[in-house]
Amino acid sequence: MIKIGIIGVGTVGQSVANILEQNSDIIEARAGKKIIVKHGVVHNLSKKRDVNISLSDNPNDILDDPEIDIVLELMGGVEKPYEIVKKALSNGKSVVTANKALLAYHRYELQELAGDIPFMYEASTAGGIPIIGALRNGLSANHIESIMGIMNGTCNYMLTKMINEGALYDDILLESQELGYAEADPTFDVGGFDAAHKLLILSSIAYGIDAKPEDILIEGIQNITDTDVKFAKEFGYEIKLLGIAKKIGDGVELRVHSTLIPQESMIAKVDGVMNAITVVGDRVGETMYYGPGAGGDATASAVISDIIDIARGNQGPMLGYKKSLESGLKLLNKDEITSKYYIRLEVDDESGVLASISSLLGEFNISIESMLQKPSSNENKANVLFTTHTCKEKDIQNAINDLAKLNGVDENIAMIRIEK
Amino acid sequence: MIKIGIIGVGTVGQSVANILEQNSDIIEARAGKKIIVKHGVVHNLSKKRDVNISLSDNPNDILDDPEIDIVLELMGGVEKPYEIVKKALSNGKSVVTANKALLAYHRYELQELAGDIPFMYEASTAGGIPIIGALRNGLSANHIESIMGIMNGTCNYMLTKMINEGALYDDILLESQELGYAEADPTFDVGGFDAAHKLLILSSIAYGIDAKPEDILIEGIQNITDTDVKFAKEFGYEIKLLGIAKKIGDGVELRVHSTLIPQESMIAKVDGVMNAITVVGDRVGETMYYGPGAGGDATASAVISDIIDIARGNQGPMLGYKKSLESGLKLLNKDEITSKYYIRLEVDDESGVLASISSLLGEFNISIESMLQKPSSNENKANVLFTTHTCKEKDIQNAINDLAKLNGVDENIAMIRIEK
Repeated sequence: MIKIGIIGVGTVGQSVANILEQNSDIIEARAGKKIIVKHGVVHNLSKKRDVNISLSDNPNDILDDPEIDIVLELMGGVEKPYEIVKKALSNGKSVVTANKALLAYHRYELQELAGDIPFMYEASTAGGIPIIGALRNGLSANHIESIMGIMNGTCNYMLTKMINEGALYDDILLESQELGYAEADPTFDVGGFDAAHKLLILSSIAYGIDAKPEDILIEGIQNITDTDVKFAKEFGYEIKLLGIAKKIGDGVELRVHSTLIPQESMIAKVDGVMNAITVVGDRVGETMYYGPGAGGDATASAVISDIIDIARGNQGPMLGYKKSLESGLKLLNKDEITSKYYIRLEVDDESGVLASISSLLGEFNISIESMLQKPSSNENKANVLFTTHTCKEKDIQNAINDLAKLNGVDENIAMIRIEK
Repeated sequence: MIKIGIIGVGTVGQSVANILEQNSDIIEARAGKKIIVKHGVVHNLSKKRDVNISLSDNPNDILDDPEIDIVLELMGGVEKPYEIVKKALSNGKSVVTANKALLAYHRYELQELAGDIPFMYEASTAGGIPIIGALRNGLSANHIESIMGIMNGTCNYMLTKMINEGALYDDILLESQELGYAEADPTFDVGGFDAAHKLLILSSIAYGIDAKPEDILIEGIQNITDTDVKFAKEFGYEIKLLGIAKKIGDGVELRVHSTLIPQESMIAKVDGVMNAITVVGDRVGETMYYGPGAGGDATASAVISDIIDIARGNQGPMLGYKKSLESGLKLLNKDEITSKYYIRLEVDDESGVLASISSLLGEFNISIESMLQKPSSNENKANVLFTTHTCKEKDIQNAINDLAKLNGVDENIAMIRIEK
């Protein structure tokens, strides 16, 4: 028999307790052991919870209980859960967490502390999709060339509505908040930070890259306008907020941003709150993993799969590498990123403007793939749209700065990166 | 250090040997150990192989070598590899196989024989897609409601060409043979048997169902006509050869057949030789796994992931269950299957024919969802198309038999099952 303590009995914690009870037949068959929740710890004891387990508000009731084998950390936050899982590990208990923020900041310290004690976190990334297992085990023969994924369901829901139904950003944000998809302060989702946490976890397994959120390029979906949505669609693109990791020589690009991708690519077809992650391995080629990225039961499904794995005696190093053997890949600086770009400028509808734009881009060695002019809804103005061949982020940023100062060019310039 | 023996050094075996050598850095980092191929065994020693390993033609050179830890069975066939892996297990060696036919017939005996010795087979189903790991580990908290997948790349390539380009079955079969996607005798692929082997493996992990290929409904793509392709497309469907497992109460339907699925479903969007498998769990909901289902390197990627798992000390029961704890689900008889159906009849273009068709269907309790008449390319004939609500396979088969005998109805009646 395996005994569990749950610290944090919110939506996911309640689902875990209930599924362990309701699906105990299949779980015992697969784990080879009975799995029992012995105790739960909550912050606010007066709040009603839909679970049949004993509750208290002191984490030590779990951490100091010698009968408890596995601690589930489902509280959220960073430093407080860090202290708790450190104590759990030092008391010899296995840990299962769904906490992406904890891992975005402390995964390497935790791998070091865990050593041979199982520390698992399938639920931390893309909810119910078993992407951690796929990357850590299923694709382990491969050098990973790239990871590209829809890792935030809120953003994908909003972008789908904007693209498919022409909804406006502010309206659909309000609707998402009413539906419970977006928080009252939506910045963590729409600003790309949630996706960045997940990307950092995946890139550790794929590349052994020790980066923190502040080290990487993170942009959200807040600047996507209905004008760009319309043009994207017209040109055969979808707009998705993607987390992207790419190996370029001995460097790795890590970035989160709105991205134009061709409508016919598989990941472009992922609509609504669903998540999907594409991984390209040097030997297997492209594989994709699709499913619900959030929700109590879907996340609990991943948490329990980790518990079953521990019950079966499986482990393997937490991040998929023995630390001493990590490859020598380096995180590329934000400026060193290369991409193709879509740029839209609103310009005075006068001769000479196009020429001065082209000439300025040439100065920055930016090679234009296609360029066209479209009417603007503003009188005497026109939209100039262009896409570039692959060029450097630094050059694009500098060019946009200078373009905004050109005579006859509106200073609000739209830029969206393009991926195949 | 882990030492490997490869029995069967064909396309996949050569890829395995070469990837173990060329990706040894990442493989050692992930496995925590060096992995070395000590020896390979082939049937025909005079054939040139592109590998740097010693070769002989006697399996006992591997099976009786006390230094070899893991035997890779990559020969194909059923009874001969069965004898070989039995001997490997009885000599205490771990086994990794890519052989779906072996498992379709002997997986339960092998689970019994293996006991606590690792026996792994990620490569047996859907090539490079880590679907075995996803189902056995990632989704282990769930009662599996259904599995539905494109498990044969050859059929999907052919159907994609038929649907997207209007290619004719015979032409595209010839092209597939020239491209090496289809064998000289294509029956194993186009008849659905390859997909059936894979479905049986997945259904054992999901349900513990001990069935053999001859126990389940297996139909191929040979009867798909250009007429039905045209109507399917017009009505918003794709045609895919699917392996389907569904839990209905205490029963499980297992079937392989051409299927109409709505164009907007994710699996409908999987084109060409790619595979994809959708799994619905009672808690996680729908997840999908997409990637290359064949090819030397993709299959070898899966084989090596199993080797790395064994090196890490992982195992878990071979089929994901301890046998004594399996649930009491029963395979449903072919007649008990229920589905929605598309039926097309060519009829004499005369009054009264529609009425007699409707009346006959009513006698078999078949409820019609939609019915329409379309011109036929044959003079004085018309196509009558209808789709049914969910009804019993047995009733449909009997109704089709009787419809074929009606006056004014051509005896060649097209039937394709429909899934959501």
